[in-house]
Amino acid sequence: MSTAKGYAALAPKAPLQAFSFERREPNDDDVVIDIQFCGVCHSDIHQVRDEWFPGIYPQVPGHEIVGVVTKVGAKVSKFKEGDRVGVGCFVDSCRHCQRDVDAEQYLPGLTQTYNDRDADGQPTYGGYSDHIVVKEGYVLSVPDNLPLDGAAPLLCAGITLWSPLKHWNAGPGKKVAIIGLGGLGHMGVKLAHALGAEVTVLSQSMAKKDDALRLGADHYYPTNDPKTFEALAGSFDLIINTVSAPIDWNAYLGLVKVDGTMVLVGVPDNPVPVSAFALIAGRKSLAGSMIGSIKETQEMLDFCGEHNIVSDIEVIDIKDINAAYERVIKSDVRYRFVIDMATLKG
Amino acid sequence: MSTAKGYAALAPKAPLQAFSFERREPNDDDVVIDIQFCGVCHSDIHQVRDEWFPGIYPQVPGHEIVGVVTKVGAKVSKFKEGDRVGVGCFVDSCRHCQRDVDAEQYLPGLTQTYNDRDADGQPTYGGYSDHIVVKEGYVLSVPDNLPLDGAAPLLCAGITLWSPLKHWNAGPGKKVAIIGLGGLGHMGVKLAHALGAEVTVLSQSMAKKDDALRLGADHYYPTNDPKTFEALAGSFDLIINTVSAPIDWNAYLGLVKVDGTMVLVGVPDNPVPVSAFALIAGRKSLAGSMIGSIKETQEMLDFCGEHNIVSDIEVIDIKDINAAYERVIKSDVRYRFVIDMATLKG
Repeated sequence: MSTAKGYAALAPKAPLQAFSFERREPNDDDVVIDIQFCGVCHSDIHQVRDEWFPGIYPQVPGHEIVGVVTKVGAKVSKFKEGDRVGVGCFVDSCRHCQRDVDAEQYLPGLTQTYNDRDADGQPTYGGYSDHIVVKEGYVLSVPDNLPLDGAAPLLCAGITLWSPLKHWNAGPGKKVAIIGLGGLGHMGVKLAHALGAEVTVLSQSMAKKDDALRLGADHYYPTNDPKTFEALAGSFDLIINTVSAPIDWNAYLGLVKVDGTMVLVGVPDNPVPVSAFALIAGRKSLAGSMIGSIKETQEMLDFCGEHNIVSDIEVIDIKDINAAYERVIKSDVRYRFVIDMATLKG
Repeated sequence: MSTAKGYAALAPKAPLQAFSFERREPNDDDVVIDIQFCGVCHSDIHQVRDEWFPGIYPQVPGHEIVGVVTKVGAKVSKFKEGDRVGVGCFVDSCRHCQRDVDAEQYLPGLTQTYNDRDADGQPTYGGYSDHIVVKEGYVLSVPDNLPLDGAAPLLCAGITLWSPLKHWNAGPGKKVAIIGLGGLGHMGVKLAHALGAEVTVLSQSMAKKDDALRLGADHYYPTNDPKTFEALAGSFDLIINTVSAPIDWNAYLGLVKVDGTMVLVGVPDNPVPVSAFALIAGRKSLAGSMIGSIKETQEMLDFCGEHNIVSDIEVIDIKDINAAYERVIKSDVRYRFVIDMATLKG
């Protein structure tokens, strides 16, 4: 066992505070990572506040982890001391069922990076901490040319958009719309643009137009203007909805082409009414997508290396994490907070 | 012009009654068909009762039309006098837009077989009549070995199930569930079984079990038993929902495999609440499908010829049409009414 320093919610809805805990000694297949940066995901807030399912406390959040390898187990072959690496939303999976699906994120035996229990029944603690011990198969390589701070959000926000963009074939000749320009949406714009798709941002008002175009969008439309829904009717091969607010999905399905798809990556608190006719009149699909597989995540990181893509971030001191949470809830960040873990260690 | 005998609703919600009207003289590309049988679709009832959109009256319903060619225009090459033919839900389309989509049923310029207006602005009158004049491109060949009465419902009920079964790759190794065993559902069972899929019927109670197995289902589960939803969790590659009643789609999405799809072919009157999580946790899709293209319809008829598939029907006298409508509404038919048009002509 090794003692780790971190920040945790000691009880549901408690503010985060400094917390010491034990990490396991590395097994033969483990990699020990000195965490340098960790992104702040909206789901961290939902989970420390116990809004999704009964959580495990104390809870150390964080699943957008980047750092440097300090030690590897005897059987680790892919990584060595000094490697720049990342860890995303899960650190183990069962791989027992539906083996034909190369998408372990959907299998029931997934072990989340935090707020879960590992194969030994021990709580998993996330990336708001100084180091982490993770099985080799769940560690990703971060390309050398990417700054570690901006790369951190690729591990959740990046892969959450990359996976549906690739699965539904975003690329040259395809028209893709991204609903919402936040932590997820801004990654969707960068990735879809780099994949060669024609990218439209659908955002509530005109406020983020300049940003959207700078990030790579070809077009920008405000959704508070009903004319947007007339002008863009039947336009898109793929719409990715990053918004968790309960917007009218039927109106957006009207913007999808025949045989097109709208993919949900945000999760509204309550079910949203769907009109069968909105799907039937055009053989349209409403689908969902959740993060991505380890294989996809590595492909995304390599792609980001080739295209110099990282997240637009605001780096914070870990002591400011509770204030940052309040700003995330108000969408007051362009576009992702990343904790500088030196502020925890210093 | 030629005078046609038919049955029509003279006004919204009026009972059907005998009605004479004019059909156009055949143009060079037209086929004149002596109608022998016409199926009764639930959508006939919705339309004569003006439940979907403002209808055109007098309204002669019927879009499951089979008969024999009596005359062809000078430029018609695919059909000749005496051919056994069918006409389905539409008799013209624009084909101007989205030409890459081989699915004219989704294009805005579609002309419905009845309750619509043709390119000259004249009302279209459907198959509850003694003859019809239709452009060659919208006339289908009915295989010689199929009885015309049982073949009639293939033109709507058959293609409505065939198109999604083929589009979503139902076949050997695939598990397909059909929700609802009515006019649509029983065709889904026959077609999915003949395509080689493993077929499960999900019906409200055990009442139709024997029928389902006789029609080709491998399994049958009652949906009034909550255990069904536990036993079948994550089982199906494809579920086709033929039910227009507002059932809990989220519960059925729980029965879909990772990367599987639930397709709606029935249209509930009101939007149905959908949980994003039901789609996201498994990259599932909720899709819609509407009838099928002319190309698909011919493929379906040829397939039915090869596999000796027709609808299970109850043949009626056209004078009993209003009573038949009441029985359709009560699901009191196994599984489709077909009007013997000799009863109109006699």
